[in-house]
Amino acid sequence: MTDFFKGIPQIRFEGAESDNEFAFRHYNPDEMLAGKRMEDHLRFAVAYWHSFAWPGGDPFGGQTFERPWFGDSIALAKMKADVAFEMFDILQAPFFCFHDADVRPEGADFAENTRNLEEIVDYIGTKMEGSKTRLLWGTANLFSNRRFMSGAATNPDPEVFAWSAATVKTCMDATQRLGGENYVLWGGREGYETLLNTDLTRESEQMGRFLSMVVDYKHKIGFKGAILIEPKPQEPSKHQYDYDVATVYGFLKRFGLENEVKVNIEQGHAILAGHSFEHEIALAASLGIFGSIDMNRNDYQSGWDTDQFPDSVPEMARAYYEILRAGGYTTGGTNFDAKIRRQSLDPEDLILAHVGAMDVCARALKAAAALLADGGLEANRQARYAGWDAPENRTLLSSDLASIEARVRAQGINPQPRSGRQERLENLWNRFV
Amino acid sequence: MTDFFKGIPQIRFEGAESDNEFAFRHYNPDEMLAGKRMEDHLRFAVAYWHSFAWPGGDPFGGQTFERPWFGDSIALAKMKADVAFEMFDILQAPFFCFHDADVRPEGADFAENTRNLEEIVDYIGTKMEGSKTRLLWGTANLFSNRRFMSGAATNPDPEVFAWSAATVKTCMDATQRLGGENYVLWGGREGYETLLNTDLTRESEQMGRFLSMVVDYKHKIGFKGAILIEPKPQEPSKHQYDYDVATVYGFLKRFGLENEVKVNIEQGHAILAGHSFEHEIALAASLGIFGSIDMNRNDYQSGWDTDQFPDSVPEMARAYYEILRAGGYTTGGTNFDAKIRRQSLDPEDLILAHVGAMDVCARALKAAAALLADGGLEANRQARYAGWDAPENRTLLSSDLASIEARVRAQGINPQPRSGRQERLENLWNRFV
Amino acid sequence: MTDFFKGIPQIRFEGAESDNEFAFRHYNPDEMLAGKRMEDHLRFAVAYWHSFAWPGGDPFGGQTFERPWFGDSIALAKMKADVAFEMFDILQAPFFCFHDADVRPEGADFAENTRNLEEIVDYIGTKMEGSKTRLLWGTANLFSNRRFMSGAATNPDPEVFAWSAATVKTCMDATQRLGGENYVLWGGREGYETLLNTDLTRESEQMGRFLSMVVDYKHKIGFKGAILIEPKPQEPSKHQYDYDVATVYGFLKRFGLENEVKVNIEQGHAILAGHSFEHEIALAASLGIFGSIDMNRNDYQSGWDTDQFPDSVPEMARAYYEILRAGGYTTGGTNFDAKIRRQSLDPEDLILAHVGAMDVCARALKAAAALLADGGLEANRQARYAGWDAPENRTLLSSDLASIEARVRAQGINPQPRSGRQERLENLWNRFV
Amino acid sequence: MTDFFKGIPQIRFEGAESDNEFAFRHYNPDEMLAGKRMEDHLRFAVAYWHSFAWPGGDPFGGQTFERPWFGDSIALAKMKADVAFEMFDILQAPFFCFHDADVRPEGADFAENTRNLEEIVDYIGTKMEGSKTRLLWGTANLFSNRRFMSGAATNPDPEVFAWSAATVKTCMDATQRLGGENYVLWGGREGYETLLNTDLTRESEQMGRFLSMVVDYKHKIGFKGAILIEPKPQEPSKHQYDYDVATVYGFLKRFGLENEVKVNIEQGHAILAGHSFEHEIALAASLGIFGSIDMNRNDYQSGWDTDQFPDSVPEMARAYYEILRAGGYTTGGTNFDAKIRRQSLDPEDLILAHVGAMDVCARALKAAAALLADGGLEANRQARYAGWDAPENRTLLSSDLASIEARVRAQGINPQPRSGRQERLENLWNRFV
Repeated sequence: MTDFFKGIPQIRFEGAESDNEFAFRHYNPDEMLAGKRMEDHLRFAVAYWHSFAWPGGDPFGGQTFERPWFGDSIALAKMKADVAFEMFDILQAPFFCFHDADVRPEGADFAENTRNLEEIVDYIGTKMEGSKTRLLWGTANLFSNRRFMSGAATNPDPEVFAWSAATVKTCMDATQRLGGENYVLWGGREGYETLLNTDLTRESEQMGRFLSMVVDYKHKIGFKGAILIEPKPQEPSKHQYDYDVATVYGFLKRFGLENEVKVNIEQGHAILAGHSFEHEIALAASLGIFGSIDMNRNDYQSGWDTDQFPDSVPEMARAYYEILRAGGYTTGGTNFDAKIRRQSLDPEDLILAHVGAMDVCARALKAAAALLADGGLEANRQARYAGWDAPENRTLLSSDLASIEARVRAQGINPQPRSGRQERLENLWNRFV
Repeated sequence: MTDFFKGIPQIRFEGAESDNEFAFRHYNPDEMLAGKRMEDHLRFAVAYWHSFAWPGGDPFGGQTFERPWFGDSIALAKMKADVAFEMFDILQAPFFCFHDADVRPEGADFAENTRNLEEIVDYIGTKMEGSKTRLLWGTANLFSNRRFMSGAATNPDPEVFAWSAATVKTCMDATQRLGGENYVLWGGREGYETLLNTDLTRESEQMGRFLSMVVDYKHKIGFKGAILIEPKPQEPSKHQYDYDVATVYGFLKRFGLENEVKVNIEQGHAILAGHSFEHEIALAASLGIFGSIDMNRNDYQSGWDTDQFPDSVPEMARAYYEILRAGGYTTGGTNFDAKIRRQSLDPEDLILAHVGAMDVCARALKAAAALLADGGLEANRQARYAGWDAPENRTLLSSDLASIEARVRAQGINPQPRSGRQERLENLWNRFV
Repeated sequence: MTDFFKGIPQIRFEGAESDNEFAFRHYNPDEMLAGKRMEDHLRFAVAYWHSFAWPGGDPFGGQTFERPWFGDSIALAKMKADVAFEMFDILQAPFFCFHDADVRPEGADFAENTRNLEEIVDYIGTKMEGSKTRLLWGTANLFSNRRFMSGAATNPDPEVFAWSAATVKTCMDATQRLGGENYVLWGGREGYETLLNTDLTRESEQMGRFLSMVVDYKHKIGFKGAILIEPKPQEPSKHQYDYDVATVYGFLKRFGLENEVKVNIEQGHAILAGHSFEHEIALAASLGIFGSIDMNRNDYQSGWDTDQFPDSVPEMARAYYEILRAGGYTTGGTNFDAKIRRQSLDPEDLILAHVGAMDVCARALKAAAALLADGGLEANRQARYAGWDAPENRTLLSSDLASIEARVRAQGINPQPRSGRQERLENLWNRFV
Repeated sequence: MTDFFKGIPQIRFEGAESDNEFAFRHYNPDEMLAGKRMEDHLRFAVAYWHSFAWPGGDPFGGQTFERPWFGDSIALAKMKADVAFEMFDILQAPFFCFHDADVRPEGADFAENTRNLEEIVDYIGTKMEGSKTRLLWGTANLFSNRRFMSGAATNPDPEVFAWSAATVKTCMDATQRLGGENYVLWGGREGYETLLNTDLTRESEQMGRFLSMVVDYKHKIGFKGAILIEPKPQEPSKHQYDYDVATVYGFLKRFGLENEVKVNIEQGHAILAGHSFEHEIALAASLGIFGSIDMNRNDYQSGWDTDQFPDSVPEMARAYYEILRAGGYTTGGTNFDAKIRRQSLDPEDLILAHVGAMDVCARALKAAAALLADGGLEANRQARYAGWDAPENRTLLSSDLASIEARVRAQGINPQPRSGRQERLENLWNRFV
């Protein structure tokens, strides 16, 4: 036991009336909801990087956090893992997620990186034996080191492609070794700073081949989890190729991977791409590629990725409503890809940020489930399109322009608009949220 | 002859030193450039709607323009056509573009709309016989009338789908009748105001079927032009399905139409979607779906579609550079989807806005052609990726993760980053622009 | 009685459990809260323009609403007033707001406009005698008519300045005649489309003088209400001079009007200016110029003024918290400067949009009041700055750089940062919201 | 001599036809223009921080630049200064700018920081004796160290206020010692992350007092330069108090400092605040507080501060046109607050980025000067407002609402709009740019 969280109790459900900061007021893991335990609906995960690896810097300032495990050695990496599992335990977190670079010290070359990773993965594996916390997903950090500054899979230098492919292999191995339920790819440097030096055609082909190799390797090693791409429109790159869900779908179709790969959707990335979070989830579900979410919040007045903890029940309810409509998670979950503000220096801040966020999600889930159970919203939606269910209208979709024109003329079709009832539906929504 | 443009001479090329407002200083139609006449490179088109149908209103104010042809009758529609062709002649415009609703009076029903359209199309056809101006593209306005308020192809009401399909048929007929080189679809209402009342799956299927019918009809009538979709992310809708080039590509792939349909890219729409204009052009070219452009400018400080005339040579040069790299237009062209400000009341404003924009485009084209001829930028691009042309690296793309990992280990691959030289390339750019 | 709202009952409070669409579930006018009736806290107003004058158009489409009172005659204007007061009665609205152009037909000249206004104001005055609804504020529409296209007070044409000044006089007279509690100025055209034709110095002097005349006239006629400026950064103008609260404050200081004029803050305008709504309210309160609010919601993904009805309790709670901290409204109120979507065609939509919004505001107010009563947030704020209350620190503010440097050296001051506790405060917030 | 720039020649003017990368093609320091040498118009400055102190990190990646002087010692700081002056010499830069933290190693406490600063300032002073490069401005970095994470002047902890005040004193001393022509304050942490823990009233009073002390100290030590505030709306803070020029003006008026303090306007900050660069310059000039500029470029598709080197002649021409209209710089200059991209690793990149930017500015200045000399734009502006120069209209501004109304009635004033001629003016602009 480290003493980093000394004095902080395990967080337990105490109900909405509790005024104990260190209690859940809404998140009650065992509460049944729409046929499942709340924990099994929400599948919360803690993100290793923000909570344990981020020093608190921003573009205009350096480290603010002083953590005893900061530094680059195996011993410190193990202390970091100890603290991480203490936090998982305090929060009763069912899952965690990590990049290779979060958990292992940086080595001098690929071989050392891999040895370091393997040693720490063994250590984490041992810790997991004594913990209820499982691995939601693993991933490779192919963006922080300077070697990736011009891309990983899309790098103009084939050696970086090779390094990246080799690294992903080791990270997929690690993920499988730890029983991970998904493997994620976020291409923070797969994009460009300027079109002037960029060959879009080459880079997209490199990226398509890279992803195909990942899928092949998954099958080769019998990894049962899902492969997930995480869309983001930009930052750090000026333009990132996995811009949003629709763009990723087109990419997958182009390389014939739409049945092999799904998406991990982040609230903040949706906002940066000009979409609402629920739009991205609903679209992915409609296209059959919904996988998992990175839950956080992006400040609407800031033009960069703020990765804050979610605090808005109505917004999160929109997200969970779409997830429930789509049938809920299969391998996916709710990963808090969120960081405490760099002014939030204390260990308590780290714990309570998660507690508050878990409560917000629980409230949102409950509201969404109640609204779905009520059925009013879905009944309205169905009624709005009911005209299409009439046989003579269903045939429209298999007709042709000339026949339809003849029908419009013959029947004197002259459609009159009908109210979309948006405000009434918003009122209905607010009865449940 | 109407007297609307009375006293305004035909615009002729006078050279950069001219201080005559009513002259081209850079656009010289017959000047040869990269093997083609400048006119044949640029293929300018005047947009009927902004110049002749828009009354000058905005969300907070009504009509500012007082045009003698405003009103809803065949006679006024003919006067409008007369004025339009007078302007085409003054500008020596090689092309124009129109929506049905721009050219004909609105009728009480589909039959009357069609009769009106046919009468005016005949009238325009006659005018074209005496003019050098040809039709770049036709399109149907499926967004202004209240019947389209909830979509055209994606409407919850199948009767609106039918009306829209019938209308597109008549507009494709009209486009073919007038020798149009393309047919465009812009889905201003194909999107949603709120997800709460929207069925994304149904709407995308309706839209896919609709587009397939358009393609089928094109083949049926032997229309030789291209079918073009015009992406826009939003406005008037909160979300528009043809968000950007990448989204349209995914949609075409989904419905197997990627070899049948191309894109018409608008500068302002690219900006609203979070992209540069040149990004959208380069991406479309890379994906094999580049068709045509709507040239205008979006104010970078305004969050809506400002549709101004282009005024920045460097920005337009980026666009033409990508067009030239892609081999130039085939059926496409440079359509000025731009409107004079609502304070620009005078007939001179209408003419001179086009004159200035044509000159900006001509300068941009010349700069782009010179830069391409210089070859420095392309040589740098090729050199940056040259490592991929080595045989041992080319095989990387057909390898697999495990083999690549073995190679990285065996060869001790440890890539070092190389400068991206962005500022040097920007300097090179500025030698030509 | 018109029959426009036939069958719609007066809305009454039924409590949170009611599932009656036509009931308040949270807004209970007589409920006491922090020493005042809820109605007296919230001071709701209906905006005449959006509900009764807007035809449902947008930049890409025309009228969608079909209202029997649309048209330009005194008789129709009176029917409009009849319907308006029926709606006020259905909603139990304590206040309404109007522009001259909302209530009267447009005349051929100033004299006719004034006669029309006076006749309708008399009519409205009579209606108010039989109604509980009072006038929150009046204002002049100095932006819709084409004469204002280049500004009202800031127009390059002094005749437009004169027309505008004369019109404001008649509107101030009308506001006083109807017992209005405030007079508002929104300068939708006080700005520019391009700097190229704009003289910033002249225009700001014109605007300063104009506002001074308004203040003088207020005193001359003994108007007891407040003069309010409504900030907005842009739209319809590219740049609007009353950009945000801070800008208006500087303008008032410049012309010595900071004790005479306050601000009417709109949620959507705050968002467009890059601020949160609560920021603008808190800043105005801190500067002593908080007056009133235009309550609505701006779509975070749309770059224009969407003027939707509010639907987010947490966001509105932030606003009411700042209003309550500032001591609540004096002459101000909560004006719904919000319009139903153009697809919301039915009379029910108009009523229910207001009902839902009033409930959202009531919930937000209750949450804000409870949080303020709890005191936890304010105690934390005070504690954070408590160091400044020590005498030796208070003197810092009246010291000088050299003395402070000497003290830093002498005392070896080396400050250590303390946690800002943001997430803990957000958790506290969510216990009440 | 270090060998960092080995082989790079001093940059000389060779004219537009030169294809030598290491030459100026437009910047010709001695060329006369509007009565002054080009160098004296532009007053270029190199920013120490971006060129010599920034390691190339971004929010998702670490250091990319490998510079021999990186590290924290006096010896390395002197090597950094050596390289800096070598670059100033290569570029013939007339000025440079610095923060304390750019030039000195970080000490353990205030006393050590000050000793380090003094030692390096002496060293720089000696270097300046052998150089033509002078100091445009100095400033204190009150944002990078963790002690400033919650503000400097506005910190809730009075000890941070004291530390900051003491530090500014030492930086003002250093600036005076080196003959600086201005002293700049950028309040990167003077703002907030969340309103929930912020006392706007206290913080603005602290900031007002702080600035007053700076002004007093300037007079005390007889510093002849200008005190400049640099506005920025946000980043790193969610909200920064010196939001834009208008906000700073209001702040100065509030504390009676509008005649003592001017603004240093940055292109990228203007963009982030929703303004064009030229707007901010023109507004500052109109308000009498224009001081200096930080020249750079913000990517229009990125929502954060990209600090790129300027590359657009038309955009920069707009800026210089406003500067020339305002009479040109007095103590101010053109500081390149711009950084090469983190992929631009080579010493050549650093030099050539400046060379390209200096040429862009020179072209822009020449175009602006020619346009101003032409007089067409100003003549149009004056004509547009000419009505105000008629005596009967001039009196309008000193009239009152009632008198004006009487005049409108008596004279039957009914103003007709006149064209704003925006496109014609844009065409005129493009004849010179």
